[in-house]
Amino acid sequence: MTRLFSDRLIETVRAKGPLCVGIDPHPDKFPRLFGSPSAGAIAVWADGIIDVAKDFAGVVKPQAAFFERWGSAGMAALEHVCKTAREAGMLVILDAKRGDIGSTARGYAEAYLGEGAGCPCDAITVNPFMGIETVEPFLSVAAEQGKGVAVLARTSNPGAADIQEQIVDGRPLFQTLTEKLYKHHAPLVGDLGWSGLMLVAGATAPAEARTLREIAPKAITLVPGYGAQGAGADDAVAGFVEGPDGVREGGVVNASRSVTFPDDAQAANTVADWEAAIRSAIQHAQNDLVAATRRPIVDQA
Amino acid sequence: MTRLFSDRLIETVRAKGPLCVGIDPHPDKFPRLFGSPSAGAIAVWADGIIDVAKDFAGVVKPQAAFFERWGSAGMAALEHVCKTAREAGMLVILDAKRGDIGSTARGYAEAYLGEGAGCPCDAITVNPFMGIETVEPFLSVAAEQGKGVAVLARTSNPGAADIQEQIVDGRPLFQTLTEKLYKHHAPLVGDLGWSGLMLVAGATAPAEARTLREIAPKAITLVPGYGAQGAGADDAVAGFVEGPDGVREGGVVNASRSVTFPDDAQAANTVADWEAAIRSAIQHAQNDLVAATRRPIVDQA
Repeated sequence: MTRLFSDRLIETVRAKGPLCVGIDPHPDKFPRLFGSPSAGAIAVWADGIIDVAKDFAGVVKPQAAFFERWGSAGMAALEHVCKTAREAGMLVILDAKRGDIGSTARGYAEAYLGEGAGCPCDAITVNPFMGIETVEPFLSVAAEQGKGVAVLARTSNPGAADIQEQIVDGRPLFQTLTEKLYKHHAPLVGDLGWSGLMLVAGATAPAEARTLREIAPKAITLVPGYGAQGAGADDAVAGFVEGPDGVREGGVVNASRSVTFPDDAQAANTVADWEAAIRSAIQHAQNDLVAATRRPIVDQA
Repeated sequence: MTRLFSDRLIETVRAKGPLCVGIDPHPDKFPRLFGSPSAGAIAVWADGIIDVAKDFAGVVKPQAAFFERWGSAGMAALEHVCKTAREAGMLVILDAKRGDIGSTARGYAEAYLGEGAGCPCDAITVNPFMGIETVEPFLSVAAEQGKGVAVLARTSNPGAADIQEQIVDGRPLFQTLTEKLYKHHAPLVGDLGWSGLMLVAGATAPAEARTLREIAPKAITLVPGYGAQGAGADDAVAGFVEGPDGVREGGVVNASRSVTFPDDAQAANTVADWEAAIRSAIQHAQNDLVAATRRPIVDQA
């Protein structure tokens, strides 16, 4: 078997930094340069993003919704994009937020993480609403295949208050859920000590990210909300802990709009101008995040 | 615009009964008669189910996971199956349990409910874990297009205890969530008085189904768990209320394995034998459910 997902992820983060490039082909934001949005056009655009990103970032996160928008042709585009990224040496975390009971959950896991998967990825985001038992089939397939599973823990949107922050027995529900979930982290721990059982923990809630780190010390975090959603680099790495050479690690930080639809890329009239704008945005975000991981941990109490 | 989803659903239930035929092409259960499971083979099998079902049931519920299992070819099969069912005059509730924030949720809604949707359906199941605001984009697209949205409220699996049944301020969380959600039911109410804002409420929890009916009197329920998952017809229609001619209505009851993989169909060596076995299983389930809706409501106190 190839190396475990957690080792591959932490290695690439140590080499390149924690930026995860979100591939979210919003039809409303699709740049003129690539024509009208379509399944084919979004694949060409995403290939372009990956071709620039591969030198500066180790991880991409395609957002399934914007591919499913185009039906089976969109799913073919998604398969193509996942393949392009993996062939470029990047890790692919598919943001699909799947979740269902037993055999159905296994169906989803096999669709994206299994041997002979229809759309092979390195990890997938999972929604735990139906209970921890419904996450287990994903964890089983991930353990069999050396893949990862990123479970929604504390998301970065206002609606997180409706369930995740509800107080049960004196504690926010996301904490209790994470405790139950973390009992399953061990089979996905690699040589570097981190688990491929990931937690999705929004950058707009840094205090919660630190709490999650205490509850789940070895769980790699996937942090959305950095950049266009308003959180800065220090908040985004709030749940990271000191690693080799004093650099903080333990997660990846996603940026989508700010690195794939920056204003100067949207206005570009040539591919070269567009590539330069994307390159600049990705480098800027990666440098910003790396700098944050090199700043000393301040006592947050 | 065509008639609202809720009117079309209630009409077909009044005409044929509340059975919803679940199309879940489990690779492990795929009948020998149709060859090895593949995207093409599951489309042929599902077409066969629909061809038999259309005379005895008005609603099908394809399970997206078992199509996604085959990648983009599986999504093409899903599109084909949805089209076959709709051309046969059936309503399609896609069981995809999607959920995400704002523009991403809108992407999913447009993928399945929108004008020019990649995979057009009449309704889709939605996961509310990220909050009620994340359900709203689905409700908006459904209102624009005369479609339905079925939100997970109280599912039929043991893991439902981890979130849905947690006690917040003295009440199970699924009740509070349903109250918040139900504030959005009005734009989807049709001429027959029912709302296309549906609630998924498991048949194995009839007491909870009755509570949901009190909280959300006009929400059509989608009831899984009948048949192979162990609940009987009386439990499955526990949340239904008296309609015209004293027949109880207000939901559809899904059966998957018991009507699409009955033992005699699995063992069939000819298409005719397989069709007869499927027909018998569907008729039996529909009759069982219709009989339950015609029994007087017993005081449950």
